[in-house]
Amino acid sequence: MGWLARVYVTPKTGVLDPQGKAVQHSLHALGYPEVGDVRIGKYLELRLVDVSRESAEARLREMCERLLANRVIEDYRFEIDAADAS
Amino acid sequence: MGWLARVYVTPKTGVLDPQGKAVQHSLHALGYPEVGDVRIGKYLELRLVDVSRESAEARLREMCERLLANRVIEDYRFEIDAADAS
Repeated sequence: MGWLARVYVTPKTGVLDPQGKAVQHSLHALGYPEVGDVRIGKYLELRLVDVSRESAEARLREMCERLLANRVIEDYRFEIDAADAS
Repeated sequence: MGWLARVYVTPKTGVLDPQGKAVQHSLHALGYPEVGDVRIGKYLELRLVDVSRESAEARLREMCERLLANRVIEDYRFEIDAADAS
């Protein structure tokens, strides 16, 4: 069975996001004063094959903790959906 | 009225994603052979204030085209939801 996992990694609330600040300033300079706070994170799509849904979920959580997110400054969440074999 | 916009910027299908490949290799090395293709994009949250929903949508599309996404190699999509004033 194949799965498509979508992982969202975001800076924790209260953690400074200089990349977001830079984008906010650029948008103001381009003429979009309506833009307030901007936060920038990562969006990952992973294909997982030959695992059960339960196993996929548990192991993906491990991957996030070990590699995909820096838990000191980032939060993560994910969704797993059935996918055609890739 | 305040809005929270969530923007997803992803590498286009067929465009090489070296960052995704690197993460895939790292996950294999960490003992996750079930990981197939990995694609990495950006996830942005923008607060928009003092605009109508229609205007927010049209202007956010402009921001994506002009700054947030590189349309040569990236696709984007977004959602806009009502947000508490920030």
